Amino acid sequence: MIRHVVLFTWSPEATEEQKAAVAAGLSALPGQIPQIRSYAFGPDAGINTGNHDFAVVADFDDEDAYTAYRDHPAHQAVIADHIRPILASRAAVQYAC
Amino acid sequence: MIRHVVLFTWSPEATEEQKAAVAAGLSALPGQIPQIRSYAFGPDAGINTGNHDFAVVADFDDEDAYTAYRDHPAHQAVIADHIRPILASRAAVQYAC
Repeated sequence: MIRHVVLFTWSPEATEEQKAAVAAGLSALPGQIPQIRSYAFGPDAGINTGNHDFAVVADFDDEDAYTAYRDHPAHQAVIADHIRPILASRAAVQYAC
Repeated sequence: MIRHVVLFTWSPEATEEQKAAVAAGLSALPGQIPQIRSYAFGPDAGINTGNHDFAVVADFDDEDAYTAYRDHPAHQAVIADHIRPILASRAAVQYAC
Protein backbone atom coordinates (compact mmCIF):
# COMPACT_ATOMS: atom_id res chain seq x y z
CA MET A 1 0.00 0.00 0.00
CA ILE A 2 1.10 3.55 -0.73
CA ARG A 3 0.01 6.30 1.64
CA HIS A 4 -0.08 9.87 0.37
CA VAL A 5 0.14 12.54 3.06
CA VAL A 6 -0.09 16.26 2.32
CA LEU A 7 -0.23 19.18 4.74
CA PHE A 8 -1.21 22.71 3.72
CA THR A 9 -0.97 26.14 5.27
CA TRP A 10 -3.44 28.70 3.97
CA SER A 11 -2.71 32.29 3.09
CA PRO A 12 -3.85 34.88 5.68
CA GLU A 13 -6.47 36.22 3.24
CA ALA A 14 -8.13 32.81 2.86
CA THR A 15 -11.80 33.03 3.83
CA GLU A 16 -13.74 30.39 5.75
CA GLU A 17 -15.82 29.86 2.60
CA GLN A 18 -12.69 29.16 0.53
CA LYS A 19 -11.42 26.73 3.18
CA ALA A 20 -14.79 24.97 3.29
CA ALA A 21 -14.74 24.68 -0.51
CA VAL A 22 -11.48 22.70 -0.28
CA ALA A 23 -13.14 20.11 1.94
CA ALA A 24 -16.22 20.02 -0.25
CA GLY A 25 -14.11 19.50 -3.37
CA LEU A 26 -12.02 16.76 -1.76
CA SER A 27 -15.08 14.95 -0.43
CA ALA A 28 -16.28 14.30 -3.99
CA LEU A 29 -13.05 12.63 -5.09
CA PRO A 30 -13.54 9.11 -3.64
CA GLY A 31 -16.68 8.86 -5.79
CA GLN A 32 -14.78 9.95 -8.88
CA ILE A 33 -11.43 8.19 -8.44
CA PRO A 34 -11.84 4.45 -7.85
CA GLN A 35 -8.15 3.98 -6.97
CA ILE A 36 -8.70 5.70 -3.60
CA ARG A 37 -8.79 3.03 -0.88
CA SER A 38 -9.01 5.38 2.09
CA TYR A 39 -9.37 9.14 2.23
CA ALA A 40 -9.35 11.23 5.41
CA PHE A 41 -8.85 15.00 5.50
CA GLY A 42 -9.53 17.92 7.75
CA PRO A 43 -8.45 21.16 9.39
CA ASP A 44 -5.91 21.24 12.21
CA ALA A 45 -7.63 20.77 15.58
CA GLY A 46 -5.62 23.54 17.27
CA ILE A 47 -4.06 21.27 19.90
CA ASN A 48 -0.50 22.44 19.24
CA THR A 49 0.88 25.77 18.07
CA GLY A 50 2.94 26.08 14.92
CA ASN A 51 1.04 23.40 13.02
CA HIS A 52 0.00 23.43 9.39
CA ASP A 53 -3.66 24.19 8.71
CA PHE A 54 -5.04 21.17 6.85
CA ALA A 55 -4.17 17.53 6.22
CA VAL A 56 -5.09 14.93 3.63
CA VAL A 57 -4.17 11.25 4.13
CA ALA A 58 -5.03 8.94 1.24
CA ASP A 59 -4.24 5.24 0.75
CA PHE A 60 -3.75 3.40 -2.53
CA ASP A 61 -2.99 -0.20 -3.51
CA ASP A 62 0.27 0.75 -5.19
CA GLU A 63 2.29 3.52 -6.83
CA ASP A 64 0.36 3.36 -10.11
CA ALA A 65 -2.93 3.80 -8.26
CA TYR A 66 -1.52 6.81 -6.45
CA THR A 67 -0.25 8.46 -9.64
CA ALA A 68 -3.62 7.83 -11.30
CA TYR A 69 -5.16 9.84 -8.44
CA ARG A 70 -2.43 12.48 -8.55
CA ASP A 71 -2.97 13.09 -12.27
CA HIS A 72 -6.75 12.60 -12.37
CA PRO A 73 -8.62 15.60 -13.83
CA ALA A 74 -11.03 15.75 -10.89
CA HIS A 75 -8.13 15.93 -8.42
CA GLN A 76 -6.29 18.48 -10.54
CA ALA A 77 -9.47 20.59 -10.66
CA VAL A 78 -9.75 20.70 -6.87
CA ILE A 79 -6.12 21.80 -6.70
CA ALA A 80 -6.54 24.50 -9.36
CA ASP A 81 -9.96 25.76 -8.27
CA HIS A 82 -9.83 25.51 -4.49
CA ILE A 83 -6.38 24.76 -3.08
CA ARG A 84 -3.90 26.77 -5.14
CA PRO A 85 -5.77 30.11 -4.77
CA ILE A 86 -5.41 30.06 -0.96
CA LEU A 87 -2.21 28.03 -0.59
CA ALA A 88 0.69 29.43 1.41
CA SER A 89 2.78 26.25 1.81
CA ARG A 90 2.61 22.53 1.15
CA ALA A 91 4.46 19.55 2.64
CA ALA A 92 3.99 16.03 1.31
CA VAL A 93 5.26 12.47 1.57
CA GLN A 94 4.19 9.27 -0.13
CA TYR A 95 5.39 6.17 1.68
CA ALA A 96 4.91 2.42 1.67
CA CYS A 97 3.08 1.12 4.69
CA MET B 1 -10.75 9.84 16.48
CA ILE B 2 -7.78 12.17 16.34
CA ARG B 3 -5.18 11.62 13.64
CA HIS B 4 -1.69 12.99 14.20
CA VAL B 5 0.34 13.56 11.04
CA VAL B 6 3.95 14.74 11.08
CA LEU B 7 6.37 15.12 8.17
CA PHE B 8 10.12 15.61 8.59
CA THR B 9 12.98 16.66 6.40
CA TRP B 10 16.41 15.50 7.49
CA SER B 11 19.59 17.55 7.56
CA PRO B 12 22.02 16.87 4.68
CA GLU B 13 24.53 15.36 7.13
CA ALA B 14 22.06 12.76 8.38
CA THR B 15 23.45 9.26 7.90
CA GLU B 16 21.47 6.22 6.82
CA GLU B 17 22.15 4.73 10.26
CA GLN B 18 20.66 7.78 11.98
CA LYS B 19 17.59 7.64 9.71
CA ALA B 20 17.18 3.91 10.40
CA ALA B 21 17.41 4.60 14.14
CA VAL B 22 14.37 6.89 13.86
CA ALA B 23 12.28 4.07 12.43
CA ALA B 24 13.60 1.63 14.99
CA GLY B 25 12.79 4.01 17.83
CA LEU B 26 9.29 4.71 16.53
CA SER B 27 8.55 1.01 16.00
CA ALA B 28 8.88 0.38 19.74
CA LEU B 29 6.31 3.01 20.71
CA PRO B 30 3.04 1.10 20.05
CA GLY B 31 4.23 -1.46 22.59
CA GLN B 32 4.96 1.26 25.13
CA ILE B 33 2.06 3.67 24.61
CA PRO B 34 -1.33 1.92 24.81
CA GLN B 35 -3.20 5.00 23.56
CA ILE B 36 -1.87 4.41 20.03
CA ARG B 37 -4.69 2.91 17.92
CA SER B 38 -2.81 2.92 14.60
CA TYR B 39 0.77 3.83 13.78
CA ALA B 40 2.26 3.93 10.29
CA PHE B 41 5.54 5.64 9.40
CA GLY B 42 8.18 5.53 6.74
CA PRO B 43 10.55 7.31 4.36
CA ASP B 44 9.32 9.13 1.27
CA ALA B 45 9.06 6.73 -1.69
CA GLY B 46 10.66 9.18 -4.14
CA ILE B 47 7.64 9.32 -6.46
CA ASN B 48 7.52 13.13 -6.52
CA THR B 49 10.24 15.77 -6.22
CA GLY B 50 10.20 18.38 -3.50
CA ASN B 51 8.68 16.10 -0.86
CA HIS B 52 9.57 15.87 2.77
CA ASP B 53 11.69 12.87 3.80
CA PHE B 54 9.66 10.94 6.36
CA ALA B 55 6.07 10.65 7.58
CA VAL B 56 4.36 9.43 10.73
CA VAL B 57 0.58 8.95 10.84
CA ALA B 58 -0.87 7.94 14.20
CA ASP B 59 -4.48 7.53 15.30
CA PHE B 60 -5.92 8.02 18.79
CA ASP B 61 -9.39 7.70 20.32
CA ASP B 62 -9.47 11.35 21.33
CA GLU B 63 -7.44 14.45 22.12
CA ASP B 64 -6.44 13.26 25.59
CA ALA B 65 -5.09 10.02 24.15
CA TYR B 66 -3.06 11.98 21.61
CA THR B 67 -1.57 14.32 24.23
CA ALA B 68 -0.71 11.30 26.42
CA TYR B 69 1.31 10.01 23.44
CA ARG B 70 2.79 13.45 22.69
CA ASP B 71 4.05 13.86 26.24
CA HIS B 72 4.97 10.22 26.94
CA PRO B 73 8.61 9.79 28.03
CA ALA B 74 9.23 7.05 25.46
CA HIS B 75 8.00 9.31 22.64
CA GLN B 76 9.97 12.26 23.95
CA ALA B 77 13.10 10.06 24.10
CA VAL B 78 12.79 9.11 20.42
CA ILE B 79 12.45 12.79 19.57
CA ALA B 80 15.46 13.82 21.66
CA ASP B 81 17.72 10.86 20.82
CA HIS B 82 16.93 10.17 17.17
CA ILE B 83 14.79 12.85 15.50
CA ARG B 84 16.02 16.20 16.76
CA PRO B 85 19.74 15.52 16.03
CA ILE B 86 19.05 15.09 12.29
CA LEU B 87 15.97 17.30 11.89
CA ALA B 88 15.94 20.05 9.27
CA SER B 89 12.19 20.85 9.22
CA ARG B 90 8.90 19.58 10.62
CA ALA B 91 5.29 19.99 9.52
CA ALA B 92 2.39 18.62 11.54
CA VAL B 93 -1.38 18.56 11.84
CA GLN B 94 -3.72 16.82 14.25
CA TYR B 95 -7.26 16.54 12.92
CA ALA B 96 -10.55 14.84 13.71
CA CYS B 97 -11.47 12.13 11.27
